[in-house]
This record gives sequence, C-alpha cells and structure tokens, in this order.
Amino acid sequence: MLLATPQTMHFEAPLALKSGASIRAYKLTFETYGTLNADKSNAVLVCHALNASHHVAGTYAGQAKSEGWWDSMIGPGKPVDTSRFFVIGVNNLGSCFGTTGPMHANPDSPDGQVYGADFPVVTVEDWVNTQALLLDRLGIETLAAVMGGSLGGMQALGWALQYPQRVRRAVVIASAPNLTAENIAFNEVARRAIVTDPDFHGGNFYQHSVVPKRGLRIARMIGHITYLSDDVMNEKFGRTLRANVAETAGNYLYSTQDVEFQIESYLRYQGDKFADYFDANTYLLITRALDYFDPARDYGGSLSAALERATCKFLLVSFVTDWRFAPSRSRELVKALLDNQRDVSYAEIDAPHGHDAFLLDDARYHGVVRAYFDAIAQEVGV
Amino acid sequence: MLLATPQTMHFEAPLALKSGASIRAYKLTFETYGTLNADKSNAVLVCHALNASHHVAGTYAGQAKSEGWWDSMIGPGKPVDTSRFFVIGVNNLGSCFGTTGPMHANPDSPDGQVYGADFPVVTVEDWVNTQALLLDRLGIETLAAVMGGSLGGMQALGWALQYPQRVRRAVVIASAPNLTAENIAFNEVARRAIVTDPDFHGGNFYQHSVVPKRGLRIARMIGHITYLSDDVMNEKFGRTLRANVAETAGNYLYSTQDVEFQIESYLRYQGDKFADYFDANTYLLITRALDYFDPARDYGGSLSAALERATCKFLLVSFVTDWRFAPSRSRELVKALLDNQRDVSYAEIDAPHGHDAFLLDDARYHGVVRAYFDAIAQEVGV
Repeated sequence: MLLATPQTMHFEAPLALKSGASIRAYKLTFETYGTLNADKSNAVLVCHALNASHHVAGTYAGQAKSEGWWDSMIGPGKPVDTSRFFVIGVNNLGSCFGTTGPMHANPDSPDGQVYGADFPVVTVEDWVNTQALLLDRLGIETLAAVMGGSLGGMQALGWALQYPQRVRRAVVIASAPNLTAENIAFNEVARRAIVTDPDFHGGNFYQHSVVPKRGLRIARMIGHITYLSDDVMNEKFGRTLRANVAETAGNYLYSTQDVEFQIESYLRYQGDKFADYFDANTYLLITRALDYFDPARDYGGSLSAALERATCKFLLVSFVTDWRFAPSRSRELVKALLDNQRDVSYAEIDAPHGHDAFLLDDARYHGVVRAYFDAIAQEVGV
Repeated sequence: MLLATPQTMHFEAPLALKSGASIRAYKLTFETYGTLNADKSNAVLVCHALNASHHVAGTYAGQAKSEGWWDSMIGPGKPVDTSRFFVIGVNNLGSCFGTTGPMHANPDSPDGQVYGADFPVVTVEDWVNTQALLLDRLGIETLAAVMGGSLGGMQALGWALQYPQRVRRAVVIASAPNLTAENIAFNEVARRAIVTDPDFHGGNFYQHSVVPKRGLRIARMIGHITYLSDDVMNEKFGRTLRANVAETAGNYLYSTQDVEFQIESYLRYQGDKFADYFDANTYLLITRALDYFDPARDYGGSLSAALERATCKFLLVSFVTDWRFAPSRSRELVKALLDNQRDVSYAEIDAPHGHDAFLLDDARYHGVVRAYFDAIAQEVGV
C-alpha cells in the first residue's frame, strides 16, 4: 500500500507568464511516490487535468477512500511501477488544492487581499515552466517520462516542446493539439454559468463569504455529460426512473422541477459535490488554459512545424468513444510527429467510457502503458 | 409571397391531460396557409419543436425578416406547396407565442393570478389531442399529412398512434422514439440553470417583474451547441478570435471573462436574444415533454408493439451529423414500422449541419420531401 504525503515548495522569484503578467512568492504543492535513484534517471512527472491535483496515487494515512486520481495506473506493480520509478504529481498554479491560487493572498495587495479575479491567467506553458522549476529544486535534470491525460496530455506535449532536452518520453493520453470550437463552446457555457451567478461577485466572492455554487453545479453537470459516451450513459442510466418510483406505482411524477430520471439525480449529485470543494476562479482559469493551448498557432497553423522541436519519444493513446478529445485529434498529433520522423507509438482503445476512459482500469489500455514503461525502465536501467 | 395571419381559437371545455390534471378555458394560436379544398382532403398539420411556434411559413404584413421557421420548406412552389395544400401551424399548449401558457391567467385562480409554476405538465400526447380539437373546429376530419422535425416529429408520430384513422401520412424528421440519457441530461442541465436562477422565484417570477435571463441564456447556449455538428462549428467558427483582435495585434487577450473566441461571442449573442423573448416555464415544460415521450413504455419497451396502432404511411428523414437525434434513432423507428409491414420511406441525408439541418435548405433533403408531397398530392387529387 502506497502512503501519500503532500509537500510544499516556495518560490520567491517572479515568474514571467505567457500573458505578459508575472507571479511571485508562490508555492507549489506536490507528492512523490517511489525513490529517486542515484543517477536521478527514473523520475516520471504526472500532469493533472481540469479538476484533479497533485494527489495522483496512494492514500493518505488514516483516510480510507483517499486514493489518488490515477491510483489504478500508478503504484507498486502497476503500469507505472513506483517500485522502479520516482513519480511526481504537482498541483498546478491557479488550482485549488494547495498550490497558490485565486483563494490565496496576493503578495502585491497592500492590505493582504486574496487574488480573486486578479489572479493572472495561466497557460499550459506556464505550468510546464513551474514544473521545471520544481524539478530543478528536486535536483532532477531529465525526466524518464512526462505523462498526462486530457489537459495533462497537453502539458506532457508542452514539456516535449519547451524542454526537449529534459524529457526522454512523453505519454499523451486522450488529448489533442488544441480544443475544437465545440470544446471551447462547452467551456464557455460553464464559465458563463459561474460568472453570471450572483454569488460570483466578479470573482471576488471570498470577501462576501459566499460561493457561486449554482454556477459550479451547472459547470460540473456539463462537464460530466461530455466526459461520458452516449453509450455508457445509456447503459448506466438509460431512461430509468428515480429510485423512489414505487411511490408512484412506476409512473412518471409529471414534474418539471423534481428528479424524474436517474441521470438527473446522478448529475445533481455530482454538481452538488463539486460545488462543495472546487474553486470558481480556478474553474475559469483552467478551462481558459485548455482554450489557449495551441502549439501550431505560432507556426502558421502547421502542427508539423510546431512539433519539430519535440525530439523525445512519444506514446499517444486515445479512446474510440471519446467525443470530447476524439481519436482523430490524437491522430493529428501522431501524423505531425511522424512528419518529423519522431519515434511514436499510438494505441486507439475501443473502450466504451468516453473521455473518462483515461482514468479507468481497462486491461488493453493499461497493458499498452505497462509495456511502454517497461521499455523506459530498461532504457534507464531500473 | 405568402402573408401570414395568426388566428386564435378558444376552448372552454376541460381537457384531460396525460398527467391526470386537466386544463380548461384555453386558447390555441395558429396560422393557415393555402386553401382548404372542397372535400377537405388537402390539410397538412405542421408541428413545432422546442422554441418555435405556429408561425411556420410566410411573413407578417409590413414586417421584413419575419419569415416563419420552416419558410424554406413550406410555401407556394416549395416542397410542401401551399398552392396545393392547406397547411396549419399551431402553437402548443404551454408555449409562449399566443397559445395559453404559464404567463397567462389561471382561470381557477380566485384572484386572477397567472399560472406560473402551476401550469400543468403537458405531453406530446396532450398536444396531439389539442391539435385534434382544433382540426374538429376547422372541420377537418382527415389530414393529408402531419409533419414535424425533432419534437415536432414526435408529435407527427403521436398523431399516427392516437388518431390513426385521421392521418394519411406522417413525416417524421430528425426525430427519435424517445430521448437518450444524454438528451435528458442536456435538458436537465438547462432546466437546473433556469430553476436555480434567483430570478426564477420557483416559477412565479412574473409577480416579481423579473425574468430568469441568466438561466435562459445558459439553456440556450447548451441548446445551440447540441443543435450543431462539431464539423460545422469548426467550419463556422473554428478557433477564430473575436472581431476586435487587431486591437491586440492578433494576440490573445488573456482573460477568463471577456470574449476571446468568436464561438463565445456567437453563443452569448444567441443566449441574450433568446432570454429576451422566451418564457422560462415554457422551457421547462417543453423539455419535459421531450423527456417524457416514449411510446414503447406502455408496451414493455417494445417499439414494434407500440407502433402496431400506426397504420398510416411514413416518411422518415435523418441527418448523418445530427448527434442529438442520430440516424440510428430514426432507424429504430423504421425497423419498428417495417416489423408491422407499414409503408415506410426513409432518407438519411449526409448534411453537415447537425440537428439544425432539418430547418435548413438542403437540395437532397428538400427533394425527398417534395417528391413525397407530390405523391400525397396525387393521392388526394390536388
């Protein structure tokens, strides 16, 4: 059993952000699993997506059901084997699980106010830079691998582009070279739900001791729909009525506001849970980082030209029922890497779970990742 | 040029609704185009979907750009030719374009209060019943055809089931035998956005002289995303930045709340426009009618058994990029009708526009409908 312990690292020096703004006196919260070997060649950085954190694997002492978000993938004997690799999970700047974010005091505020809406806009590139600074502190020059799913995959790709000499392999799962208009559209609806919640107060709700829960709930409900495939939703919920259907002898309630179908109950529950722990400004920041990521943008839209810098080896994985980050988007990446004669492995997994599949335990998927990390272990001699 | 004139018909007698409730002293607003022939055999009823109305075709005198929502399909010389057919459009009970709805006075309220949240839940079956009562008043016993797209297609199917002897042909476009879990999920998110808007006041916002515009905007934005295909969104908007991008020399604004991409601007505009004219309670009622429609439900889930009652001829049309009412759902209907040896024509149109395609002018689509109505014209001798 893997015990996880969050750690924190402070950074005083200002960091220039892609937006032109900068941030100083910030902290990064992270966890590590396994042991860094003598030549520091076995480090694996795991990047998180929208609503996850540094807590990638293991459990917290005395806390049942506190497994990390990728615990099925990472741990002793698992596909990313922490008895061989030193795995690092970092909470990204602007998030809400320990790393400096909008809910923390702004060091440039004369009266110690929290950032709120003034937290600078952060990008995938900025996160990669902060992760590199953390690795510097940990004395790790080169990563055996950087890996992530969805937005985490964009960071893995960002590493290959920004620090090509510091990465041996990049594992990019259920990701894309940029968001489609539809992806941006879903993000925008979620953001509008949050921003137009009267409890948002322009992002400075902390001073009003309220939380824009209505908006967060809607954002999460939209997210959940897009993470699942139509098929898996039909299989899990279909048109099944609410749990207390016996009370109406199996009939509809005929109500516009009460829960009638189980899918409604599920979404409301997920929305409520999320609104209790997630920060509204973080949601805006992280969805914007997704929108902005677009490495081809500085290369006249040519992804092949953009990826020329990326010299490491790649594993890409996509899932056929993922309509949020469809296999066609991973194939764009594969093609652009092959255009540059890069070493690319690609697996398209026929899992039914939609985008969520990257978090789940599918034997074919895990088999591919395990084989890939076995090869890395051999390469770095662990 | 077709001039449209709304008319209103009052119904005093109580109408029993599927929910067990009833409604009395209501009015239906409708329009007719073309001339009813002597033997009253050329009537075509057009049923509307979520946010449309009785104003199906033509324009209002002196009002430019007031075309009906299916004006490309219906009119003199058009696929449904009003120089041969007598076409009727009816605004459905609970809607907000003239027919009695939640914004109207409840005749059972002692102090003349409007219905608000007390408006009874209405179903596709109830709408079909009201449409039949209207036809009774117009002296029309048998429809040459009933037609509709999306929720309108469900009503056309409902006609074939509830009044099989009164329909010659049913034209069911971009529709489905019921909603999937994902469809219900999108409806539920839209409803929660409306219901949790503080200006909703439990559905009785009229008395507070406010409108839950925030919720309506979110509902409409979600709707728009699901009406379009991913492809057409990429083609129309892609990742194109806002109109004033020259002001930032082509760069991102780096803002979480301002419009950055054109797709955001489009969705906000559509949301604002919708919130200015659509009724929030109507939105709840109509999405619920969608959720509830499920003719197979009373037949142990067997659509074939449910459709045995439907004896008319059918035309079904679906669009390959429609992921809200996918072709597979129309094929379920086709199969169930063929199981009953019904006369079914089916066209699957390779149009790029997603669910919205049913409202657009596609030559192959209109060709199919035109040919089908030519056959009807021959059958009824017009």
